[in-house]
Amino acid sequence: MTTVGESRRGRPGYDQGGILEIAVAAFNQYGYEATSMGLLAERLGLSKAAIYHHVSSKEELLSLALDRALGALEGVLDEEGARTGSAVDRLSHVIDRAVHVLVAELPSVTLLLRLRGNTEVERQALTRRREFDRAVTALVVAARDEGSLRSDIDPRIAERLVFGMINSIAEWYRPDGSEDVDRLAADVLAVALDGLRS
Amino acid sequence: MTTVGESRRGRPGYDQGGILEIAVAAFNQYGYEATSMGLLAERLGLSKAAIYHHVSSKEELLSLALDRALGALEGVLDEEGARTGSAVDRLSHVIDRAVHVLVAELPSVTLLLRLRGNTEVERQALTRRREFDRAVTALVVAARDEGSLRSDIDPRIAERLVFGMINSIAEWYRPDGSEDVDRLAADVLAVALDGLRS
Repeated sequence: MTTVGESRRGRPGYDQGGILEIAVAAFNQYGYEATSMGLLAERLGLSKAAIYHHVSSKEELLSLALDRALGALEGVLDEEGARTGSAVDRLSHVIDRAVHVLVAELPSVTLLLRLRGNTEVERQALTRRREFDRAVTALVVAARDEGSLRSDIDPRIAERLVFGMINSIAEWYRPDGSEDVDRLAADVLAVALDGLRS
Repeated sequence: MTTVGESRRGRPGYDQGGILEIAVAAFNQYGYEATSMGLLAERLGLSKAAIYHHVSSKEELLSLALDRALGALEGVLDEEGARTGSAVDRLSHVIDRAVHVLVAELPSVTLLLRLRGNTEVERQALTRRREFDRAVTALVVAARDEGSLRSDIDPRIAERLVFGMINSIAEWYRPDGSEDVDRLAADVLAVALDGLRS
């Protein structure tokens, strides 16, 4: 996510990005609510005051991480491949790219997916996430209306199932593992559009 | 999950099942680690001592809930439909029934799906869950080998994607909503086996 080590001032330490990286890992391991600034300070080897030099609160760390995940996902919808071509091609582009974003931004997307909506920051992120899902559902509807997708499954359910498949990758994907992300995205697309049957 | 109200002794209160129900809801809302016995006592309107009359620890509540979810899932593999017939029919049975189990045992399965593996009880549950996934993967392999399923997707990835789809239902399903569970299970099977393409 960012450099951990020498800060810009030339002394060992963390910049905001480095603190964010450690914080997101802790939120994912223990849950946001169970992670205190004290625990973060311990993990970083910093005083709490040193952390507050970089961020105003634990909630700001959450907000920065969620904005990173959501910004990356929303960016997919603005890409050329999501805006031109047949609806099924645009949908395919979004599915493929969403897998890539999930893998590239694994810690922050994992955090986004585990939100419980207990705080205002979480609820705002869930609202943004729902807007993303609505945009993808509109693509499913368009692909159905153009005759590319079956019409016997509610587009909202179809979108939820496909993104359920994509999001679940965060539960088992290991960045250092043998799973190639292009192959994985192709597998998701193959199941979503054509299914497992031979 | 169980009766909340009159206990067997005839005075208002909770039995172990009633305490478990409230505990699982709190674990799902705040996370297991962030939920203290004090918070549970508050929610139940009981003293901590009264809770300890029914369960030995917070961890026992977690253990009981996870055993409930895992027992229900494992039970599916023992059903007639999962043990006889072609591999693809057995796999279809397991997928269909797993959706039904998820909806029937929504709170405890949700808890299972959100485990982080920070405690021994969690790690044991994750081991049991992996054994379930291995059994389903063996079915995918058998269905591929009998020629029913495509051979260009790694069966372990196929199993993870299909159960990712199933498990994601826990994130949005509302027991009081309009989603019929039979229909939902049929939709999951349709996407998993045949895909969304018309």
